[in-house]
Amino acid sequence: MSYSSLTRLPAGAVDLSKISTDSTQGFADKGPSKKKGGKKSGKSGGRMKDVGKAALAALGPELADLQECFWAEGASGGKRRILLVLQGMDTAGKGGVLRKAVGLVDPQGVAITAFKSPTEEELANDFLWRIRRALPPAGYIGVFDRSHYEDVLIQRVWGLAPPDEIERRYDAINEFEAELTASGFTIIKCMLHISPEAQKERLAARLDDPTRHWKYDPGDIDDRARWSEYAAAYETALSRTNTDAAPWHVIPSDKKWYRNFVAAHLLLEHLRAMDLKWPKAAFDVEVEKARLAASVVR
Amino acid sequence: MSYSSLTRLPAGAVDLSKISTDSTQGFADKGPSKKKGGKKSGKSGGRMKDVGKAALAALGPELADLQECFWAEGASGGKRRILLVLQGMDTAGKGGVLRKAVGLVDPQGVAITAFKSPTEEELANDFLWRIRRALPPAGYIGVFDRSHYEDVLIQRVWGLAPPDEIERRYDAINEFEAELTASGFTIIKCMLHISPEAQKERLAARLDDPTRHWKYDPGDIDDRARWSEYAAAYETALSRTNTDAAPWHVIPSDKKWYRNFVAAHLLLEHLRAMDLKWPKAAFDVEVEKARLAASVVR
Repeated sequence: MSYSSLTRLPAGAVDLSKISTDSTQGFADKGPSKKKGGKKSGKSGGRMKDVGKAALAALGPELADLQECFWAEGASGGKRRILLVLQGMDTAGKGGVLRKAVGLVDPQGVAITAFKSPTEEELANDFLWRIRRALPPAGYIGVFDRSHYEDVLIQRVWGLAPPDEIERRYDAINEFEAELTASGFTIIKCMLHISPEAQKERLAARLDDPTRHWKYDPGDIDDRARWSEYAAAYETALSRTNTDAAPWHVIPSDKKWYRNFVAAHLLLEHLRAMDLKWPKAAFDVEVEKARLAASVVR
Repeated sequence: MSYSSLTRLPAGAVDLSKISTDSTQGFADKGPSKKKGGKKSGKSGGRMKDVGKAALAALGPELADLQECFWAEGASGGKRRILLVLQGMDTAGKGGVLRKAVGLVDPQGVAITAFKSPTEEELANDFLWRIRRALPPAGYIGVFDRSHYEDVLIQRVWGLAPPDEIERRYDAINEFEAELTASGFTIIKCMLHISPEAQKERLAARLDDPTRHWKYDPGDIDDRARWSEYAAAYETALSRTNTDAAPWHVIPSDKKWYRNFVAAHLLLEHLRAMDLKWPKAAFDVEVEKARLAASVVR
């Protein structure tokens, strides 16, 4: 199954309400687990969740191998880079994708940037200034937890930039991303798509659990009150920046296990498509074997 | 078992040849596996290796929990940071520790810096200049793959800095590290200790496997030829900078599984010792529950 095709946003206008938030396409619901001698799971969803989690873990070895090969290319003069952009409403699961999907690869090859409210210095510069500074080096998988898209989302919803500036930014983003892909970037843009009901459950879960209070921000409710404005801002942003160079993927994210699996699979598919090869030795292997054999350590 | 105590370098002069490189203390060799119906492992070491790998994986959940709590503290105004310093001869396994031990925690909370040969700009500044710039933010586990110790190791062995400057650096390092711990840093300094024979095997394995040629650097043989000079430089550096504020741990690293386990366990012990608490809510939980309940999404 190609999750790249499955999740790829079609060209044209976007209506997020028409895109499923709780799809588990690719995973057939086989009903309650009835393994001999095993415990029955309470509901059929539990069985699928277990299958999904196992499927995610099963991606680990190939993902780690390809990532190492990609890293080796970068360490040997290659110029290619990967940029994974994670966007979504509060609680959509950007952190979960980082922990569970990105966490499957060697942390040495990952460069994560979480974009917060811009600093004064950042505001004094073009909106892409801080983005450019956070681009990953060759051989790295860069991950943006929020990104330049906040500059056409939160900034539009809360009127933090004038409409003509917002308007200018869509084209600026497309030019920027086209420049990146032309210079060797593979860009994977993911919108983690949740329902307002799922968000409510997740915020309630944070409030109910003292070990998760630190994750809760009263501002989340203010943003939640503007759900439809955010959805409209997303729809415009997605349709305006859904280019062939850097297309959008909308990941149904009401089910955390499915979201994590799909995100990891997208990364895997993009790595597979890079046609990675182990770098050839830049030295004479036989000469080095002889040098090593002759090396005497006092 | 406290691996912090076990691996802690005693005060005083250091003789690395007196410290085991292949110890597996803490793991009893139970002999070949003879599990009913299971496959016999070829040699007793295979059995212990499996036990060790399972023991490493078993540290994962507690390590991840404590790291999240540490991260939460940093996200809630806490100032504490962790700095894990990895030093060792070529092939000692700094990358392996990063992948297998550090890889057990959320990559969002890890800031890895691999120090290479200094750039011109770095050379134009004090040796600690680039180190200070790479210090982790609050709540992060910073990991240095090589570090300021290279400035008293490779620089001494290859005469890249004059002896009086090298001499000055030991005290400068101690002052620097004392300043860090006073400001809330927990510093875990690890020397991954391998034998020259283990290094020879690992370099040979890289030369024998075309998928690992990219990891091989002909310069490694030049460094290897100066093994005893490096050992002497390490012995001086370790003894001169083995302070109470930032003591050295010498990890027997001929067995990769043991090295990874001990490194992860050291990290775990230091996190346990931090007496971490989940941050208290900075808002009125009941008020927020009511706001959430009342929040209507159109």
